[in-house]
Amino acid sequence: MSAPARMIGVGVGPGDPELMTVKAIRALGEADVVAHFAKTGNASRARTIAAAHLKPGVTELPLLYPVTTELPKHAPAYCGKIDAFYQDCAVAVAAHLDANRSVAVICEGDPLFYGSYMHLHVRLAAHYPTEVIAGVTGMSGCWSAVGAPICQGDDVFTVLPGTLPEAELARRLADADAAVVMKVGRNLPKVRRALDCAGRLDRAMYVERGTMTDAVVMRLADKPDDDAPYFAIVLVPGWEKRA
Amino acid sequence: MSAPARMIGVGVGPGDPELMTVKAIRALGEADVVAHFAKTGNASRARTIAAAHLKPGVTELPLLYPVTTELPKHAPAYCGKIDAFYQDCAVAVAAHLDANRSVAVICEGDPLFYGSYMHLHVRLAAHYPTEVIAGVTGMSGCWSAVGAPICQGDDVFTVLPGTLPEAELARRLADADAAVVMKVGRNLPKVRRALDCAGRLDRAMYVERGTMTDAVVMRLADKPDDDAPYFAIVLVPGWEKRA
Repeated sequence: MSAPARMIGVGVGPGDPELMTVKAIRALGEADVVAHFAKTGNASRARTIAAAHLKPGVTELPLLYPVTTELPKHAPAYCGKIDAFYQDCAVAVAAHLDANRSVAVICEGDPLFYGSYMHLHVRLAAHYPTEVIAGVTGMSGCWSAVGAPICQGDDVFTVLPGTLPEAELARRLADADAAVVMKVGRNLPKVRRALDCAGRLDRAMYVERGTMTDAVVMRLADKPDDDAPYFAIVLVPGWEKRA
Repeated sequence: MSAPARMIGVGVGPGDPELMTVKAIRALGEADVVAHFAKTGNASRARTIAAAHLKPGVTELPLLYPVTTELPKHAPAYCGKIDAFYQDCAVAVAAHLDANRSVAVICEGDPLFYGSYMHLHVRLAAHYPTEVIAGVTGMSGCWSAVGAPICQGDDVFTVLPGTLPEAELARRLADADAAVVMKVGRNLPKVRRALDCAGRLDRAMYVERGTMTDAVVMRLADKPDDDAPYFAIVLVPGWEKRA
């Protein structure tokens, strides 16, 4: 039985397929079309997580990012290209909705927390029935795998992109009780210096593929090199007064 | 079949039982003992969420907070009483572990994100096998129910307790792209003034019981009174440049 035609942003969690919710699995069983973002030539990480729950023969709609790494991020050419891509994606999803097919857009982590899904949401939610199914975020998956109590009581918690300038990273790290730094990758040397400047390097944990069987976890101070994939994160647990 | 004796922090998500993960449900099917925090005289919210998945006849270990509302929060008498309570809880859980029984400690939201479970974790994880199962946080449940894209790209995201002083709340709200204010309750008038001072009141959403069927959701600027339960939250979506 198909659900009424609607767009559903489905969070499939941080990587371990068992961290999918019952609601996400039900949505995949009901949707007529399953859409997923991926880089051209790469498998969608969300699709890999959800694979066991796709209906046999379900229509899939891969949404493939244009190759844009050769353009600087804030260049008008990049912004124009990526905007046109999201617009094309919205048109492709809308075509299915117009044909009375419901579309599950599967998303790693949580759909509305730094996810590509929201580019569809802001373009389509005002025009079509829309539902969002919350998911376990990548950062929750990481601090749970590490067993690091991240924040408690009246802690101030902050999520920082590793792309920020070094001085701003240091200022914000010093100003928060607990923090997560995302988009580490080639920003790692800068992130390390900012943590040191903020007096937080000793507490920082480096995590790669946190909820996978091949996870890499260590104190950042013990990491001997600055090699890190884009999706690596750094955790700075709070709760200093009681730890 | 019972799992090997261990303590498992089990996140059961923000309220909707369908937002439990497959892994949480499996853990409840395997544990010998299910522990849950609650106020004396109140049902545990985590237990209510997980009720359908408790094994018939499973041993339950209610962990009942002492009545402490008559004491100021930072008073030595309060801190001593609550520390003694957590210590007693750890002893009670350890007694089951020593008897080779595995104990699932169920937690609303995510166990290591502002949860009582971590008071057990810091006391027992060094001495017993321990596992933490990440859950969907209350705030994810809320912004998903509201359909509010909370943060994107290089946004800085901050979680603030409503208990902070007004000037500090205003400073931190102005300094973040996206924010969530927790522990709203009787702090609402102060939170409202701080948002106004930071120029963010127009974007703020007020949410009560976000993932329940009786959810209350409105623009904070439209809320005519300052009545709010302790667990109400305020969302300040980021992404201003593109919204």
